[in-house]
Amino acid sequence: MAETFKELERAERDSRWPRAAILDAAHFNADGLMPAIAQQHDSGEVLMMAWMNREALDETLRTGRVCYWSRSRGKLWRKGESSGQQQHLRSASLDCDGDTLLLRVDQTGPACHTGRRSCFYVALEETGARITSDPLIDPDTLYQKP
Amino acid sequence: MAETFKELERAERDSRWPRAAILDAAHFNADGLMPAIAQQHDSGEVLMMAWMNREALDETLRTGRVCYWSRSRGKLWRKGESSGQQQHLRSASLDCDGDTLLLRVDQTGPACHTGRRSCFYVALEETGARITSDPLIDPDTLYQKP
Repeated sequence: MAETFKELERAERDSRWPRAAILDAAHFNADGLMPAIAQQHDSGEVLMMAWMNREALDETLRTGRVCYWSRSRGKLWRKGESSGQQQHLRSASLDCDGDTLLLRVDQTGPACHTGRRSCFYVALEETGARITSDPLIDPDTLYQKP
Repeated sequence: MAETFKELERAERDSRWPRAAILDAAHFNADGLMPAIAQQHDSGEVLMMAWMNREALDETLRTGRVCYWSRSRGKLWRKGESSGQQQHLRSASLDCDGDTLLLRVDQTGPACHTGRRSCFYVALEETGARITSDPLIDPDTLYQKP
């Protein structure tokens, strides 16, 4: 598997490879998971990092709607299924080692369960950690009990 | 530890918290590591994802030069120590769960060991996987044997 990505290192720009072979060579960790970074496609804002197994990745590529693996719930997690805040895939790339994904997405509303646009809101500054954003939506509204 | 990040969920924008307490509450995995995403601060390009232990994070925050933990070499990895392609820290943020870092950096030259600017160059497209960039520098030049 590692040989495939080694081969790609010297591959020319715009050269194409069979997608199934690349996905088969991709490296999921001992739990069968791979970190996936979600970036808003137009603003470039990094929204969140979550995990995918092969099934979640296949579904995401097939449907264009981002599906992760929830480690806490132990099941597929179609982003937005309870909050309504979906992620639509614009493009997906593997890194040089084939063990991390970068997803360029179009995120509806907040990506974060706190109601904030991005999950990265705790800045580590010299004078202390600082909260860098407010929720767009009250999380109590985001996850309404039926 | 999880309680600290739970408390931050409702914290107001620009509120400040003791940095040491936040770092102590941050969640490193069973191997003592946390994923760190490096993003070029001005262009927004996501350059790479690597891992940090607490020591690497402390050093990065203290020196402003990004230091990861190399899982393959089992030691601290001061980015650019062999290639010369350093990462200078502009800002660092933890996510809502305190288990992932986003580093906004100023990257000298290529971030990728293949000589490419970004490690994410294997796009998963419908018609196949496609190589999306060429090296800026020949990797044989990047890692010259002494």
